[in-house]
Amino acid sequence: MNLIKIFSPATIANISCGFDVLGLCLDSIGDKMIIRKTKKKGVIISKIVGQILPLETNKNVAGVAALALLKKVDIGFGFDIEIHKNIKPGSGIGSSAASAAGAVFGINKLLGAPFSLQELIPFAMEGEKLASGTAHADNVAPALLGGFTLIRSYNPLDVIKIESPNELYATVIHPQIEIKTADARAVIKQKISLQKTIIQTGNLGGLICGLFTNDYNLIGRSLHDEIVEPYRSLLIPKFDNLKKESLKAGALGSGISGSGPSVFALCKGKKIAKIVGKVMAKTYEKTGIDFDIHISKINTKGIKIIQ
Amino acid sequence: MNLIKIFSPATIANISCGFDVLGLCLDSIGDKMIIRKTKKKGVIISKIVGQILPLETNKNVAGVAALALLKKVDIGFGFDIEIHKNIKPGSGIGSSAASAAGAVFGINKLLGAPFSLQELIPFAMEGEKLASGTAHADNVAPALLGGFTLIRSYNPLDVIKIESPNELYATVIHPQIEIKTADARAVIKQKISLQKTIIQTGNLGGLICGLFTNDYNLIGRSLHDEIVEPYRSLLIPKFDNLKKESLKAGALGSGISGSGPSVFALCKGKKIAKIVGKVMAKTYEKTGIDFDIHISKINTKGIKIIQ
Repeated sequence: MNLIKIFSPATIANISCGFDVLGLCLDSIGDKMIIRKTKKKGVIISKIVGQILPLETNKNVAGVAALALLKKVDIGFGFDIEIHKNIKPGSGIGSSAASAAGAVFGINKLLGAPFSLQELIPFAMEGEKLASGTAHADNVAPALLGGFTLIRSYNPLDVIKIESPNELYATVIHPQIEIKTADARAVIKQKISLQKTIIQTGNLGGLICGLFTNDYNLIGRSLHDEIVEPYRSLLIPKFDNLKKESLKAGALGSGISGSGPSVFALCKGKKIAKIVGKVMAKTYEKTGIDFDIHISKINTKGIKIIQ
Repeated sequence: MNLIKIFSPATIANISCGFDVLGLCLDSIGDKMIIRKTKKKGVIISKIVGQILPLETNKNVAGVAALALLKKVDIGFGFDIEIHKNIKPGSGIGSSAASAAGAVFGINKLLGAPFSLQELIPFAMEGEKLASGTAHADNVAPALLGGFTLIRSYNPLDVIKIESPNELYATVIHPQIEIKTADARAVIKQKISLQKTIIQTGNLGGLICGLFTNDYNLIGRSLHDEIVEPYRSLLIPKFDNLKKESLKAGALGSGISGSGPSVFALCKGKKIAKIVGKVMAKTYEKTGIDFDIHISKINTKGIKIIQ
């Protein structure tokens, strides 16, 4: 095999009570990537369609992730990466993660899969480090593994995949505004009351129990975040309305995707997910801010090979 | 049915990363209670064997819990409660919870079970309120439901039962010293760093995943608490040695039971649980402090009716 075409999905990190530990994989939105073996050693990014992003290998998240992988193998050839971006950078649904995870997934396949999906996570994290300054795993892990992923620990890295209930859908609105990473970080309180820590662990536990037992109501009851959302949501226009209207329309729960500006709602079934998409759109139409809406089943497989 | 004899088990609350949200039910240690219908309305505590505890109904945790239940039913008779205490008060393995939960469980049965086990929790919590000043549920819930219990929320009360992996055992050492509740509370920090909150949620999530997937190693890796244990353990002589030796002997993990002084270890299989009991005993024999050791499978049923 000298060429591979893949679909590398968008992802939602944080998921309310799962701040910095949970992520999930989407299905209806993602980048297409074509990776080819080249005679020349090393990695080149030959083409990026749909977004203006750096083509220099060591300034591109896919390039950096690919190089991290190639450091661990001894081969006499290289790779060419072509990226068709559908996920907008800065949207909060794992744009950089899709590129980084896709690159290492594709190269690994072309090498005959010397690494497990779990083993690819640290390579993809190097791409995240380039993108945001921290080598976080909460988008690359669900992109690679599919379903929900829990990062139990970073030191050592310990990622656990959790299967998604079959009827679980996510509706995502991406308001096309830019939230500066510095602002998203600055609003977070660095000291939390013990009481809120307890509430957060209770909800995170409830959410995981709900996922294992297909208890949609429990998933909904657990989708709360008193630690980050109250502050970060201030940076997202109409966040409270989006959430209130989504819940009224039947969503199980709603929160900030990643560090925003995207806002997600989890829903039982496609029908409700679509209705939630409509009320989200209606809420945003009044603002004059451009937005995209994505409605997606939870992707249980992660990155897929396209024929 | 005019009389019921029950076994009301000891329980472990907190369980490392599950501070204030998790509890589990033991099997090899618990109180025996005999509850009889009486012609006279109200509740009397006729006999307590094994410990010196108040017989006045409204000063006894079993009495107070029973009265809370009886407020919700309209009956023309009353109950007599006899308690044979095997769980020492102040041991940190749910002595008051066993009495309170046992009382409401037994009375409910004698009434033809008008309440579900979940519905009995708030009544039993009234006993805990008398015992410790706060109506906590993390011992009464596992005593009533068995297995592991997660308190997702207190407001409203939302308790989720989690089944225990089949080979999971607990070894508990109860050093016979008194830790004053005021001291156990005073050492806890009321402000937690965001980083530690994230670590706690990651471990709590990992522990719950491990319970659902029977992944004993994951359970072990998740049994960490950076929030309370580092401070409360200072009140328990030789805590660090107990933990170190337990892990060396094969325990999956170890922590403080409730607010101490008991220390627990979770183990895969009875054989390892017994070895851990021996090394705990050996560690404590040098101290001159009296102690009990309990080795127990996780009790998946909770309170049991004795024939």
